[in-house]
Amino acid sequence: MTDFAAWSRAIQTRTENVLAALLPDADIAPEQLHAAMRYVCLGGGKRVRPMLAYAAGEAVGTEVARIDRAAAAVEMIHVYSLTHDDLPCMDDDDLRRGKPTCHVAYDEATALLVGDALQSLAFETLAHPVAASEAGVQVEMLRLLARASGSRGMAGGQAVDLVATGRALDLAELEFMHIHKTGALIQSAVLLGALAGGALETGTRERLERYARCIGLAFQVMDDVLDAETDTATLGKTAGKDAAQGKATYLTLMNVKEARAYAHELLDDALEAIQPFGERGLRLAQIARFIVERRY
Amino acid sequence: MTDFAAWSRAIQTRTENVLAALLPDADIAPEQLHAAMRYVCLGGGKRVRPMLAYAAGEAVGTEVARIDRAAAAVEMIHVYSLTHDDLPCMDDDDLRRGKPTCHVAYDEATALLVGDALQSLAFETLAHPVAASEAGVQVEMLRLLARASGSRGMAGGQAVDLVATGRALDLAELEFMHIHKTGALIQSAVLLGALAGGALETGTRERLERYARCIGLAFQVMDDVLDAETDTATLGKTAGKDAAQGKATYLTLMNVKEARAYAHELLDDALEAIQPFGERGLRLAQIARFIVERRY
Repeated sequence: MTDFAAWSRAIQTRTENVLAALLPDADIAPEQLHAAMRYVCLGGGKRVRPMLAYAAGEAVGTEVARIDRAAAAVEMIHVYSLTHDDLPCMDDDDLRRGKPTCHVAYDEATALLVGDALQSLAFETLAHPVAASEAGVQVEMLRLLARASGSRGMAGGQAVDLVATGRALDLAELEFMHIHKTGALIQSAVLLGALAGGALETGTRERLERYARCIGLAFQVMDDVLDAETDTATLGKTAGKDAAQGKATYLTLMNVKEARAYAHELLDDALEAIQPFGERGLRLAQIARFIVERRY
Repeated sequence: MTDFAAWSRAIQTRTENVLAALLPDADIAPEQLHAAMRYVCLGGGKRVRPMLAYAAGEAVGTEVARIDRAAAAVEMIHVYSLTHDDLPCMDDDDLRRGKPTCHVAYDEATALLVGDALQSLAFETLAHPVAASEAGVQVEMLRLLARASGSRGMAGGQAVDLVATGRALDLAELEFMHIHKTGALIQSAVLLGALAGGALETGTRERLERYARCIGLAFQVMDDVLDAETDTATLGKTAGKDAAQGKATYLTLMNVKEARAYAHELLDDALEAIQPFGERGLRLAQIARFIVERRY
């Protein structure tokens, strides 16, 4: 099966099933919290980070079942960050993946606890004995995910974003923000998927890190392009908000044509980094192309 | 040094120093987030959970330096939960440890990210190679802390607390809530301090779990008594709020005299559990007595 659309649907289904099994049932106390955790995690999402974890595992020859928990853990961190990001004190967004956001469907306190509990569940998921083949590597995976989530990773990028809203950033500042806000978690999706099968050679790890850095930035460039060009119904979240909120985006530094060209440069660099994986790097290459060529 | 007051001051100083070294400096970007993380973590606090970690380590013969990261990780989870608990959508509290709460000193978005980033930092801290003597045990410690923090632990207890506000609970419901809200993290402080030195025999672990369960409940009983009896200045946080907010407490089920008697029963049970540790259980015994006899 070399068809990317079919493979990505299979990964989306697998991710949905793995998450559904790992999330506590909605009839276990506290019922409302568990129902809300399932509400934000299940029933949609592009699942880009799980795709990256499975694709990176394939590139280094890890069996698929071994990657399930790493992929789910990274996705839980991502979903928790969206849940908190949508809160009134942050982006104050009502729509996510075409559904009311958590604090709209439930309430703010529940949305806060949903995010908090999902972060814990991500680490609990990754600390299960079956989540890695060696305990030493597993501790390293947990440390990588924690660092990528925290103040020198995703949460730190969100803090920079808050402070930057309403003022001009240059390209270096903008990329510093994105390397933290989205890049760190994308990189940990790639590394965790590969590490789930065991320790990596230095060269392999460096290739994966370079690939991840390039597609992380390309993802953000395209997010900014799509936010400006696409309507809310297609996007599944409120479109045009970045400009309306005075947020620094790539489109405050370059026009749409230049932004698309920049994304393609990053794509070429990502493809070059994984070239030595040959056939086994097929999915990583397809994801990189998808990120740059997607329309939502 | 058998004097508890001197030992607890030494642990408080040690915890302050360990946290100050583990928290990113306030001049590292994002500066405001790091300054706010240091604001909530440093400069005070009873440090009951670190005390428990060091005392449990002493009971099983673990060297003190080995316990530093476990103790700091549990304290970071505790401080993150206080920071989120004080937010307007939760308890909406202005005062904590005698200082303005994080969202008052900074703003709501910063307080949200401070809590999120501290939770990540707790796991990053515990996933460092020096945080345990064996990688297999370290993975178990990470899993224990994650479970104790999440929806079947602390965050779940807070969710029950939210739903329960304004309605009567019976003793079983109230204890279910507290075993999750505060008990789970207290238990992980005890277990992590002991596990930092290596795997535990089943009997040792069961004794520590029983001790932790008893003092966790006693801690909460006394918190309710002190909230009702003590003034805001002595408590360092807003007194009398539980009753004002219609929260279920032990004092809605029993009077102060009965609550104190119940706390003493729990104390006796805790002391019996650790009796086999002999001299090495001295600090655990002293902490249990402190919890029941404290005035703030």
